[in-house]
Amino acid sequence: MPDKAHSAPQAGPLLDEDQSRAIEEARARTSETRRSISEDLEEILFQPLPVLDHGFVRVIDYMGDDAAIVQAARVSYGRGTRKVSEDRGLIRYLMRHRHTTPFEMCEIKYHVKLPIFVARQWIRHRTANVNEYSGRYSVMDREFYIPAPEHLAAQSSSNRQGRGDVLEGEEAAEVLEILKQDSRKAYADYEKILNETEDGEPLDENRQGLARELARMNLPVNFYTQWYWKVDLHNLLHFLSLRADPHAQYEIRAYAEVMLDTVKRWTPLAYEAFTDYVMGGTHISKQGLDILRRMLDGEQVTQETSGLSPREWRELMASLGR
Amino acid sequence: MPDKAHSAPQAGPLLDEDQSRAIEEARARTSETRRSISEDLEEILFQPLPVLDHGFVRVIDYMGDDAAIVQAARVSYGRGTRKVSEDRGLIRYLMRHRHTTPFEMCEIKYHVKLPIFVARQWIRHRTANVNEYSGRYSVMDREFYIPAPEHLAAQSSSNRQGRGDVLEGEEAAEVLEILKQDSRKAYADYEKILNETEDGEPLDENRQGLARELARMNLPVNFYTQWYWKVDLHNLLHFLSLRADPHAQYEIRAYAEVMLDTVKRWTPLAYEAFTDYVMGGTHISKQGLDILRRMLDGEQVTQETSGLSPREWRELMASLGR
Amino acid sequence: MPDKAHSAPQAGPLLDEDQSRAIEEARARTSETRRSISEDLEEILFQPLPVLDHGFVRVIDYMGDDAAIVQAARVSYGRGTRKVSEDRGLIRYLMRHRHTTPFEMCEIKYHVKLPIFVARQWIRHRTANVNEYSGRYSVMDREFYIPAPEHLAAQSSSNRQGRGDVLEGEEAAEVLEILKQDSRKAYADYEKILNETEDGEPLDENRQGLARELARMNLPVNFYTQWYWKVDLHNLLHFLSLRADPHAQYEIRAYAEVMLDTVKRWTPLAYEAFTDYVMGGTHISKQGLDILRRMLDGEQVTQETSGLSPREWRELMASLGR
Amino acid sequence: MPDKAHSAPQAGPLLDEDQSRAIEEARARTSETRRSISEDLEEILFQPLPVLDHGFVRVIDYMGDDAAIVQAARVSYGRGTRKVSEDRGLIRYLMRHRHTTPFEMCEIKYHVKLPIFVARQWIRHRTANVNEYSGRYSVMDREFYIPAPEHLAAQSSSNRQGRGDVLEGEEAAEVLEILKQDSRKAYADYEKILNETEDGEPLDENRQGLARELARMNLPVNFYTQWYWKVDLHNLLHFLSLRADPHAQYEIRAYAEVMLDTVKRWTPLAYEAFTDYVMGGTHISKQGLDILRRMLDGEQVTQETSGLSPREWRELMASLGR
Repeated sequence: MPDKAHSAPQAGPLLDEDQSRAIEEARARTSETRRSISEDLEEILFQPLPVLDHGFVRVIDYMGDDAAIVQAARVSYGRGTRKVSEDRGLIRYLMRHRHTTPFEMCEIKYHVKLPIFVARQWIRHRTANVNEYSGRYSVMDREFYIPAPEHLAAQSSSNRQGRGDVLEGEEAAEVLEILKQDSRKAYADYEKILNETEDGEPLDENRQGLARELARMNLPVNFYTQWYWKVDLHNLLHFLSLRADPHAQYEIRAYAEVMLDTVKRWTPLAYEAFTDYVMGGTHISKQGLDILRRMLDGEQVTQETSGLSPREWRELMASLGR
Repeated sequence: MPDKAHSAPQAGPLLDEDQSRAIEEARARTSETRRSISEDLEEILFQPLPVLDHGFVRVIDYMGDDAAIVQAARVSYGRGTRKVSEDRGLIRYLMRHRHTTPFEMCEIKYHVKLPIFVARQWIRHRTANVNEYSGRYSVMDREFYIPAPEHLAAQSSSNRQGRGDVLEGEEAAEVLEILKQDSRKAYADYEKILNETEDGEPLDENRQGLARELARMNLPVNFYTQWYWKVDLHNLLHFLSLRADPHAQYEIRAYAEVMLDTVKRWTPLAYEAFTDYVMGGTHISKQGLDILRRMLDGEQVTQETSGLSPREWRELMASLGR
Repeated sequence: MPDKAHSAPQAGPLLDEDQSRAIEEARARTSETRRSISEDLEEILFQPLPVLDHGFVRVIDYMGDDAAIVQAARVSYGRGTRKVSEDRGLIRYLMRHRHTTPFEMCEIKYHVKLPIFVARQWIRHRTANVNEYSGRYSVMDREFYIPAPEHLAAQSSSNRQGRGDVLEGEEAAEVLEILKQDSRKAYADYEKILNETEDGEPLDENRQGLARELARMNLPVNFYTQWYWKVDLHNLLHFLSLRADPHAQYEIRAYAEVMLDTVKRWTPLAYEAFTDYVMGGTHISKQGLDILRRMLDGEQVTQETSGLSPREWRELMASLGR
Repeated sequence: MPDKAHSAPQAGPLLDEDQSRAIEEARARTSETRRSISEDLEEILFQPLPVLDHGFVRVIDYMGDDAAIVQAARVSYGRGTRKVSEDRGLIRYLMRHRHTTPFEMCEIKYHVKLPIFVARQWIRHRTANVNEYSGRYSVMDREFYIPAPEHLAAQSSSNRQGRGDVLEGEEAAEVLEILKQDSRKAYADYEKILNETEDGEPLDENRQGLARELARMNLPVNFYTQWYWKVDLHNLLHFLSLRADPHAQYEIRAYAEVMLDTVKRWTPLAYEAFTDYVMGGTHISKQGLDILRRMLDGEQVTQETSGLSPREWRELMASLGR
């Protein structure tokens, strides 16, 4: 299911034995419900979908499906759906005209394992519920993110907030080595000042160890954290429109793309409408519309005669595939 | 299930035949799911729980149960629950110490039919999702709220925002008559200016009729509207703590009390903790604590020696049952 | 300042003497501040800008200006602005690329008087703060909205949620008469069941009067209410993009257009960018972009060969002015 | 102004020369405004109030004062205030009865410099606006948090989420040394893989340097970041009630306490009410109230006869000072 491109080879297994067993037990249990279900999503429920080198996305729970969008839009007494083609038409209409409230009637809950620096971008989306693993209360895992060689990008020279060419050869090797060494050292020192191992064993019986809430300050932001994250479909799509965008940092995009696949399983009609009207579309400015009209009237418009800045002109031409 | 006190005798049936059939069909269909379920809530799923004279609350969907609160608090790989007594203890601890995020991991969706003036109080709670029946798009129903005689209260003379004695005799009869007459007249005139009946039949083929979005302005706020309302458990409990409170207007309290019963079915442990720590408890101010300490030390404190205003003193004594 | 088209001739003065005096006193007082100010907005501070027949919008307070957007985007120690042209460029860049957080750093507070049915649409925007006049606590004003004759529209025959031709002649006169009569009757009966006049005088000393929170249920939704409404610039622009849109109901659009003028005074650079990139622009779908590319390549595309539904085709052509 | 206890001796000056000059220039400029002002807050506007070893809180802007709370509660045409004693009484009433919306009518904006691990706790409060310094776009500062010796606490043995005794002697020295060394090494390696110094100078002209958005992953969470944070008074007080609480981690409490002082300057009446009813008060459960009633009736209640768990009993006795 997850985009292969984002599934870096794992240094080790994604889960330990206890975790795998807990997930298998949860998957084995089923119940009868009167609620609407989404069969394709049930299929992968609880399973970890790998992202980056140690991360994952797991769908833990959900509420509603495509029919629930239609049902809410119609404020129905029963299921509220008619023929598939009518439901599809209504969902596309709602998406096209920004009638967002029916999409808020579906809810999904994920368990995500992700580097702290990705978590810091993610949490900027406020219309969601979060329960994060607590480094005040528990010892942090010894797991950190090291980019795969093909993602080891240099600073872009044209875009201050972007990536340029991939580093290669000696420079790449040196960078990877520094990242690994520093992460290992940081964790070893974390255990030392905690006076405790990852498994909670004391290192030196005669010492106390620094409080967990303080010791964690030694860990870099490439260490993994995890959280439960719950969001409604409208706000999830908004998140994905920004984070699955090519301008987003690669590491969060890797999560967004795996999540897009879960939306496709969950609410395929909403997913299709989102793909057509939001992700695949573009916004054209007032000036851009004027230029389009001139071009359609046969005028040869250039950047110079367009009135747009070189940058905006490039952006407009790119969206028109020219 | 709903509090009998709030189930006023219905003027007619709560639902028409189509609505009843749609609900029965929805209730008859069940599916297998890997999600956790709440059996007591499944039992009443989709059923209208009557409130006031024509209103109802229906649970349409839900996500999570008591175990989901525990699971999120522990950021678990599996179900995350242990012994019932441990789960109960954790839920009570979370409630007592205002660790609210795990309660946000449960979500519920209601279909509610309610007078417009109740809807206007309700909507002030912003952390929820809403889809309301549209009076721009559809003809409004001919249903309006008339208080039961025992709720026909006079203005309180001591509290500008409250009710006093129940009106009786001739005055009560006159008030009820005015309310009914004006509502009937308003609806009849609504149909006349719409040039359309409740069922969508034109009244006069040679006329156009005022736009629905304008004609509805003639209807008083005791007319019923309906909406789908979706909220997480934490925000639902906050809503209920304010709206099931004796200071809330009776009409919205009637809804809140029926919804409290649905919470009891859905997440009984969270409900119990909420009852013990929030609804049944009270907040004591700094000055109040000082007075309590003096009283426990044996001092006879009076309002005069308390330093509190008469009103705050009364409130404090009331919460202590004195 | 307010759009003349929306300033219906007032039946009487917009404010009573006490209100006018209170506003004049507030306007007369000035203080020294270190905060950034917006001179053009200061000019109209506290003044009622008329909307519909008895409504208004008043700017009560604000925080930040165009420079505050720049300052936040740069996380500056000082004012953070450079040359006007650079600031303008940055603001346009932020608007174009949906970097919305810097626009949230400006805040504005309005006092609005508006019909209840408009308030009900307005309140659907949840990311704002609201304090509404309380009909539980105080007697409601005897003011209700009657559409000006040129806004007395018939139901659209093509769009279930829209207006068609303006009603004329006898039908228009009858509709207006019904609306006025019913509103007057509703208020007179409101006073009667309250046993109190608009000015708080008892009607019959021997009666109690129904509680205010109940009596108000007799008033139709064209009665005016009022509130303080506070919102950040980003969410205000989002509100305006939906409510100043031609698809919005005329009555709320009248408010949105007056508020657009206040934004122009407050943050002229953000206003300009909003006008160019949001209000004046359009969203083109994936299919729409494909069609545009074919047209720019010289193909004669028709609705039939476009693959779009007739409705989507019309919408696309309209946005291209064809 | 800031609590002395939280102003650790600075390793160097809090601001560089450019920053100090920018702040002084901003402070020197004043304008006339019709808006209400808060004189005591104007006095410290823009000034950095030191927190921890390199952090600060600066008030950048504000909107409203105590009078604005009263004005909104009364939905006034003018200033809306009466005698100070009446305004004070109303504000206390609103605070006591959880009428929170008038407090939302005041807004404040801070510029905060804080360690990343503090920022991660802080951002969990979602009802606020944030603009953070971007490590994707700019080089991070070489500033990291090292606890003052008196805050170098061991893990609590009784409370998994708390601190115990302060570490001393050799163990303390070793912990501090590790934290410092690892932070210095992390930053030196950050520059090396960036191939750039803190001031933006390239280290090796023949190399490209890793993208900023990737290189930052090497920095531990005790490094400082900074943001603009804007919030309304109600949500600020809620934040402070949780983060100035003794259960909060010391490092975020240090910020909360400095911010409490800014609230005291800004809205002294709201601050006083908050201190009396929220911070200084306590919540008593249903069971706790029963016990209080028994104690006030003269019964000698013990933990065993109370029905409370030992932990709840201790908490109840602590709040009663017994």
